[in-house]
Amino acid sequence: MTLMDIHPGRLRVAETIANRYRDEVKADLKFVATTDRCKSLEGADFVICAVKVGGYDPLEAERKIAEAHGYYRGIGDRVSCYYGGVGAYHQLKFILDLARDMEQICPNAWLIETANPVFEGTNLVTRQTRLKTVGVCHGHHCVNRLIDALGLNKAEVSTQMVGFNHFIWLTHFIHRGKNAYPLVDQWLATKSQEYWKTVNYNEQMSPGAFNAYQLYGLFPIGDAVRSGTPWWYHTDRQAKEQWFGKDGGFDSEIGWTRYLSDKAAEHKMWEKLAEHPEQKLLEKYPFKHGGEQHIHIVDAISNDKEMKLQLNIPNSGCIPGIADDVIVEIPALVSGRGIQGVKADKLPTRLLNGVLLPRMIAMENILHAFLNGDRKALVLMLMDDHRTRSFQQAKELIDTLLAQPWNATANEHYRW
Amino acid sequence: MTLMDIHPGRLRVAETIANRYRDEVKADLKFVATTDRCKSLEGADFVICAVKVGGYDPLEAERKIAEAHGYYRGIGDRVSCYYGGVGAYHQLKFILDLARDMEQICPNAWLIETANPVFEGTNLVTRQTRLKTVGVCHGHHCVNRLIDALGLNKAEVSTQMVGFNHFIWLTHFIHRGKNAYPLVDQWLATKSQEYWKTVNYNEQMSPGAFNAYQLYGLFPIGDAVRSGTPWWYHTDRQAKEQWFGKDGGFDSEIGWTRYLSDKAAEHKMWEKLAEHPEQKLLEKYPFKHGGEQHIHIVDAISNDKEMKLQLNIPNSGCIPGIADDVIVEIPALVSGRGIQGVKADKLPTRLLNGVLLPRMIAMENILHAFLNGDRKALVLMLMDDHRTRSFQQAKELIDTLLAQPWNATANEHYRW
Repeated sequence: MTLMDIHPGRLRVAETIANRYRDEVKADLKFVATTDRCKSLEGADFVICAVKVGGYDPLEAERKIAEAHGYYRGIGDRVSCYYGGVGAYHQLKFILDLARDMEQICPNAWLIETANPVFEGTNLVTRQTRLKTVGVCHGHHCVNRLIDALGLNKAEVSTQMVGFNHFIWLTHFIHRGKNAYPLVDQWLATKSQEYWKTVNYNEQMSPGAFNAYQLYGLFPIGDAVRSGTPWWYHTDRQAKEQWFGKDGGFDSEIGWTRYLSDKAAEHKMWEKLAEHPEQKLLEKYPFKHGGEQHIHIVDAISNDKEMKLQLNIPNSGCIPGIADDVIVEIPALVSGRGIQGVKADKLPTRLLNGVLLPRMIAMENILHAFLNGDRKALVLMLMDDHRTRSFQQAKELIDTLLAQPWNATANEHYRW
Repeated sequence: MTLMDIHPGRLRVAETIANRYRDEVKADLKFVATTDRCKSLEGADFVICAVKVGGYDPLEAERKIAEAHGYYRGIGDRVSCYYGGVGAYHQLKFILDLARDMEQICPNAWLIETANPVFEGTNLVTRQTRLKTVGVCHGHHCVNRLIDALGLNKAEVSTQMVGFNHFIWLTHFIHRGKNAYPLVDQWLATKSQEYWKTVNYNEQMSPGAFNAYQLYGLFPIGDAVRSGTPWWYHTDRQAKEQWFGKDGGFDSEIGWTRYLSDKAAEHKMWEKLAEHPEQKLLEKYPFKHGGEQHIHIVDAISNDKEMKLQLNIPNSGCIPGIADDVIVEIPALVSGRGIQGVKADKLPTRLLNGVLLPRMIAMENILHAFLNGDRKALVLMLMDDHRTRSFQQAKELIDTLLAQPWNATANEHYRW
């Protein structure tokens, strides 16, 4: 197994931790560490992409610029382009460059694409290359928070969620063989008000999640509560507090700052652990499956162990009303046969028309703008933002964002 | 030929004028007039629907209500639901009822659907019945205004326009065998400023039409300048004047009032003519083809005279990226074989994503709301209007519109 990072210090931490866990559990694994991407791809059967180009600092700077132009929390709170800065340029460029390298070096390998924006990234690669590609996220696990809050036994519940990455909705919720949606309605009617008085509720059980369920007919799961809910939940801090609780939820200035500092603290922790080889990792951080699906995919395909996972793959007719070549996040059987999507029922029309198709159009815009260097498309996308008051406002913001030093290549790329 | 109207006086005027023209030109035609719709359908080969249920007064009243809720010129200036009032309910109900009658009485007849909203109406009928249906409009003739303004000889120009009804765009503009778009650019660069100083220019040559061409890559034709141009051209009188000229164009309070009074004057004129049988019609109003396509369709199909017309028919692959079952307005060959669409090239991505797909979604929403009596869908549609500031604002307006006396059945129909 090859670990690759362009940052030697970060790479050394990952390699050290991996080797020590390997030794403690006596696994028959060999880790190779390299800063050379092409070398890391040689002989690969699976390539996991978890890149964040440039880290979060440029994104935070872009967010501040956008706020000065009238866009609270930046222009990406409801479209995933935020994850990659304006136009998602840096992430998409990396993902496509990586895929091109794979076509040369390991054309039969699977690309397990887990870097955001997963939706745009996987659509880009499946359309531009012939690589076997699958997008992976973990947001669907949040359905367990709903199960827990309703007081149900997880072993007696089955679920199905479909949509796009960060836009998945609970199509089936079955408890002891019966539709459990009435239990959601009951909880809303009898327990929600008391629950929402507590400060520490999570977004999955927020008023925003329930209101979106009432508007669109299905319950939003995981990141869908952040990304798939309508614009008027997100206009300002007050709206965010109304819909996502006292701190305004994951994407408010409070929630997001907490996320970034948690991330930094975690990184520091691994750094420190790497410096103390005498510390037994298994004692302090027991080895357990974290719920990510990457290893499952490798296991299922390589060893022909059939598993049902929640994956991002081309629709190919699985969700009616979505084009075949659009990547959808659906349950899929993974095995020696490859990855086979499970056919979904027709989605509620309000959900399809009001949430999924507009998100699909945004993806198509981002990819078109990226592939054609089309700045007009970026500005026209921003005109669709409900906070935009004039063409000049949108045009100036896009121009200003692209004029930042970290966007020099993007500024060249996107022409008027 | 059967003339049908529920209003006996109006019907009598039409019958009188038709018979007198027939006598003057000595045509071998027999007119029958009836106020009984079912009777009028008996034995029909072609049925032309040109209804406007309830006239314009309720629409004008709804427009005033919408303005009081913050929506200048009403909520339909950029979606065709305006033509039928909130949800286009009355027009759609009539069109579907008529189609159901046709299925019983003349199931093999063609329905020539020319009543607005043509886009929603034709999609409704082709999906809900097995009738042969075609939508007909005349807006594409406005391309002649562009040809004239550029000083070209119409006989040396060929054009193609595609899109949806009221949303058609000039894909081909050929003069003496060469692409004539550079002449448009040249006119814009050298003559537009002088031209726009004149008060009486038409919308087809307005700054809005040219700006939309620059944004989306193709020139909007006819009603597309009104309906297919972006939201910020339409927010208030000032914006309308900037983009459509001194009076704010066809849909401003000035332009629209003029349209309604012209309509009323025309009606009065026919009434007066009908009262004066001594007046020779041919002398005062010479018999000439008005550019409408209804008679061409009948002639082409009945007599197998192949003609190329501009018609609204199911896409069936003609425009890439639009679903097969969506009605598109494209060139089509009409003959004894029926109506055969002409395949179009891929449209510019900014136009497809920024204009056509959002309009398609609006149509799907209107039809869904109509077929399912779904008031939430109407409110969610209005939330997409850039002038909407809050959910309450949109909800209150929809509720208020539906509470008007002329909307009593619609108010029953659309449930929360």
